Amino acid sequence: MMPGKEDILVPYADMKKIFSEILLKQGFTEDKAGQCAEIFTASSADGVYTHGVNRFPTFVSYIKKGYVKPAAEPSLKNSSGSMEQWDGNLGPGPLNAIAATDRAMQLADQSGIGCVALSNTNHWMRGGTYGWYAAKKGYAFIGFTNTIANMPVWGGKDKKLGNNPLIIAIPYKKEAIVLDMAMSQYSIGSLQQAKMKGERLAVNGGFDADGNLTNDPAAIIGSKRPLPVGYWKGAGMALLLDMLAVLLSGGLATHEISSKQAEYGLSQVFIAIDLSKLHPASSMNNILEAIILDYHSAEKADADGRILYPGERILATRKRNLEKGIPVLRAVWEEIGAL
Amino acid sequence: MMPGKEDILVPYADMKKIFSEILLKQGFTEDKAGQCAEIFTASSADGVYTHGVNRFPTFVSYIKKGYVKPAAEPSLKNSSGSMEQWDGNLGPGPLNAIAATDRAMQLADQSGIGCVALSNTNHWMRGGTYGWYAAKKGYAFIGFTNTIANMPVWGGKDKKLGNNPLIIAIPYKKEAIVLDMAMSQYSIGSLQQAKMKGERLAVNGGFDADGNLTNDPAAIIGSKRPLPVGYWKGAGMALLLDMLAVLLSGGLATHEISSKQAEYGLSQVFIAIDLSKLHPASSMNNILEAIILDYHSAEKADADGRILYPGERILATRKRNLEKGIPVLRAVWEEIGAL
Repeated sequence: MMPGKEDILVPYADMKKIFSEILLKQGFTEDKAGQCAEIFTASSADGVYTHGVNRFPTFVSYIKKGYVKPAAEPSLKNSSGSMEQWDGNLGPGPLNAIAATDRAMQLADQSGIGCVALSNTNHWMRGGTYGWYAAKKGYAFIGFTNTIANMPVWGGKDKKLGNNPLIIAIPYKKEAIVLDMAMSQYSIGSLQQAKMKGERLAVNGGFDADGNLTNDPAAIIGSKRPLPVGYWKGAGMALLLDMLAVLLSGGLATHEISSKQAEYGLSQVFIAIDLSKLHPASSMNNILEAIILDYHSAEKADADGRILYPGERILATRKRNLEKGIPVLRAVWEEIGAL
Repeated sequence: MMPGKEDILVPYADMKKIFSEILLKQGFTEDKAGQCAEIFTASSADGVYTHGVNRFPTFVSYIKKGYVKPAAEPSLKNSSGSMEQWDGNLGPGPLNAIAATDRAMQLADQSGIGCVALSNTNHWMRGGTYGWYAAKKGYAFIGFTNTIANMPVWGGKDKKLGNNPLIIAIPYKKEAIVLDMAMSQYSIGSLQQAKMKGERLAVNGGFDADGNLTNDPAAIIGSKRPLPVGYWKGAGMALLLDMLAVLLSGGLATHEISSKQAEYGLSQVFIAIDLSKLHPASSMNNILEAIILDYHSAEKADADGRILYPGERILATRKRNLEKGIPVLRAVWEEIGAL
């Protein structure tokens, strides 16, 4: 989003410092507070406000309620070589996810591919964080998480599926190409943000109270029936990702998480592949450049439209927000100021 | 589909025998002809006619044109432990894909997870084949392929993306739960079949010649603009799956395959995870049964509707087709009879 009238612009360093100070008050070590503050700030700088600055107050409330345990660290449960199971011990989701990504990359260093499945962890905030992180170190990355039930099954009315985001990331010219895709047409965060700004969605994003498709975010939040990506297809994929996350991690399924009072104790999977064993970096960039050149050469459906690859818009947003400050809704920033 | 007026019912054993005899005439060994005939027949028995019996004449024409080489077998290009690159040497796509799945399972036996990337191979027909195959042997399976360009980029008019199917499969009670998902809302095969039967699609599946969304399969085949699953999301995922298949296999990208006279020389990825190292089979079935019980308990949007998990409908279709014979369009069966 471009900064709006209701936004204030917060410099990156200031936001990170404020987040870090709040987390220190919540019992984080200096090191962990800094790492966590960095992740929330970087997501905000990348324009993913819904899982950055807008979500920070909820994260702090989960610490206060004891769902997120600041000092907890993941512990190894089971190893079969290139595949490991870890218990997240309800530590901070972003820190557990970084640790799991690091470990998957170590396993990939040893034998080409590594998979870490993490049970009993917390919301990882922006899934793309771990894709950018691994890809910028030269690894291909596939990751997914389950969530609380927030999406109906296909042909059903009540929430039974998580919107279980899937991340696929690839290194490209010292940056990355990153797909960060929730299984609902719009993430809950995007629906909330559109509602907060009084905007309509670009395409239908769910059902209204009468069961008709609509692009009104408030109606969809009201009915609790966001549309799965591709109707039955995204619903099916959400189910399979939940099953896979649960079987690989030995953790809780969406229906079990949903029976608790809040969304904690999630199951996640992190797969890293060491591309340096397969290609020199230069040849990899050439291969991807040729694909992107062809992709960008498509005849536009709209003369004014833009054809972008996943993650491409983020590079421009990041540049702007680093230069001019990160736009934050005044109400959100005031709430954070009071923490 | 239920058998229609224009269909004849072919017993499984007869179909397999006829396919096998045709392939023997095309230079397949007895063993390979039988294996390939089995795959085409099993897909048809499962109701995936578009990638079974309906596609068989095209498969034979590709052999005659030299795109598919009956005697070729995959050869190892590169190994980094749990991750291997193989060259498909333009052998029959289904046989190469079975060999790659077998090898990924062997690697998973050694160290929990195995990944085989296959370059220079041919159309694997029904992607679900390899998911059912691996899952029935106790492995979780993730696989994907690139294809010729058959889908527009988001915001673009001309075909630039493949519909690059993604398969996720999990063992369940001696059968499997299998997601077999092309990145277009409808696979090309489904569009062709609906057109052949004069049917409309259940939801909009692409654009007409004027750029408007439509559920008329003939208009979509005409405009060559099928709708990606979830609009920009499926388009982005198709791009990432192509990039990943190419980087992992060292094979051709969609834009390179599309510059040839026909769809051959594809890039594919097969990932297997040995679940027996993580759970006893009985506990795995209990975990999945609880998820499915909750899923099936959703309040129906339509009193007459059914709520099915991916692959559930196939079990009923398979049972019916094994008992009563596989329904085949008369014109298709006559074409096969003349091969």
